Amino acid sequence: NAGTIRVSEIFGPTIQGEGAVIGQPTVFVRTGGCDYRCSWCDTLYAVDSSFRDLWKPLSPEAIMAEVIKLSGNKPLLVSLSGGNPAIQPLGGLIDMGHEQGYRFALETQGSVAKDWFAKLDNLTLSPKPPSSEMETDWDILGSCVAAAGPDTDTALKIVVFDDLDYAYAKEVSRRYPQLPVFLQPGNHTPGTVDEEAPGVDMKGILERMRWLVDKVVEDQWFEATVLPQLHVLIWGNERGV
Amino acid sequence: NAGTIRVSEIFGPTIQGEGAVIGQPTVFVRTGGCDYRCSWCDTLYAVDSSFRDLWKPLSPEAIMAEVIKLSGNKPLLVSLSGGNPAIQPLGGLIDMGHEQGYRFALETQGSVAKDWFAKLDNLTLSPKPPSSEMETDWDILGSCVAAAGPDTDTALKIVVFDDLDYAYAKEVSRRYPQLPVFLQPGNHTPGTVDEEAPGVDMKGILERMRWLVDKVVEDQWFEATVLPQLHVLIWGNERGV
Ligand code: SF4
Ligand code: SF4
Repeated sequence: NAGTIRVSEIFGPTIQGEGAVIGQPTVFVRTGGCDYRCSWCDTLYAVDSSFRDLWKPLSPEAIMAEVIKLSGNKPLLVSLSGGNPAIQPLGGLIDMGHEQGYRFALETQGSVAKDWFAKLDNLTLSPKPPSSEMETDWDILGSCVAAAGPDTDTALKIVVFDDLDYAYAKEVSRRYPQLPVFLQPGNHTPGTVDEEAPGVDMKGILERMRWLVDKVVEDQWFEATVLPQLHVLIWGNERGV
Repeated sequence: NAGTIRVSEIFGPTIQGEGAVIGQPTVFVRTGGCDYRCSWCDTLYAVDSSFRDLWKPLSPEAIMAEVIKLSGNKPLLVSLSGGNPAIQPLGGLIDMGHEQGYRFALETQGSVAKDWFAKLDNLTLSPKPPSSEMETDWDILGSCVAAAGPDTDTALKIVVFDDLDYAYAKEVSRRYPQLPVFLQPGNHTPGTVDEEAPGVDMKGILERMRWLVDKVVEDQWFEATVLPQLHVLIWGNERGV
């Protein structure tokens, strides 16, 4: 069925932990499947086809029914994530949710452009830096920006582990100076175990966050916004929160 | 001198750790003196007159010179905080900075309204909840909203320690439904000492953050944004970062 969406998990409401809508209550719809294999991917269960049996093919109606149930029928922000949600047919779901007052934010690496990006309330393009071991197709990234158009709030979010990633982030921003840019310190998972946050290298995350702030300040990149993954600081790498 | 501003400290650039401009690189100008005495005030050194000898009376020119020096003459966001910065004559400083491309965000409890609020780029009104043991003058808070006018991005930020504070936050938001509202878990300082964050009750802060997210979700207050004090998570209660 052409309208069927492969779903890894639907959960919430919780708060959005990253980027432009950080702190906003949201329900997550995580789709299954990804055209990338980032070296540090922290959602392999929504990427690798060995987990395929855990993904459910759902209609837009079934997804909206679950979102409405979780949110007690009170409209809120729906966060579409993955995997790469851009490879799923999400236009109908967005239309259906909009009719009922829900808003939609989507995050993708920008490797697949879709016309329905223009229906989104927020689009976060998160092209992957060198540490991911992926290659950026700049033409397709440009098509994603163009597809979103003027009615969608589009932002860039770049994960930064090291100096090379930082230089990459500057290059992405140089290409799209009109887009707000969010820098996010990388999270190697799993690392040392911290009592407050099981499975998380909290020390490493905080050190990388401090390093990234220092870097931005020294470099005088004052247009960038630096934000950690808040949900990781608060709940660790648990799923479903 | 009528144009002199009492300054407790000027530091940065670092990132803004709270509210509407969280994560943005900024230089802080903290003024000395406050008309409140919140039970949990974490900047007593900028409030209590026993610290008065540490505050410097500075001209707007001297303050801008320091901001320009710290930012390497590259315009950025200047965060005006206190104490209560609204009791200082800041209009001239804002005009001077704007001419050079700097932007200004100010946070105040909303107990004093000034015409120059309309010059600000961002105004955060942070009226104090019951746990502060302060009383809100609703008329003056309304005057602050009105003074800011349509050209200033105005937001509400409420610190929440407990259920009474939460109910207060809802009441503030009910009065100003047009304003975005940020909820911030309270930070009792100092608490138990954590290695990564000296002087901070990190466990208490994280527990209060989780509690507040649960509360907002159960209450379906999906218009609220919940954000912790990021700088406290990253650097603890150190000054000057
Ligand atoms: S693009 Fe995202 S989901 Fe896909 S492999 Fe990379 S990190 Fe994982
Ligand atoms: S209003 Fe702010 S600066 Fe003044 S006493 Fe309260 S917490 Fe401290």
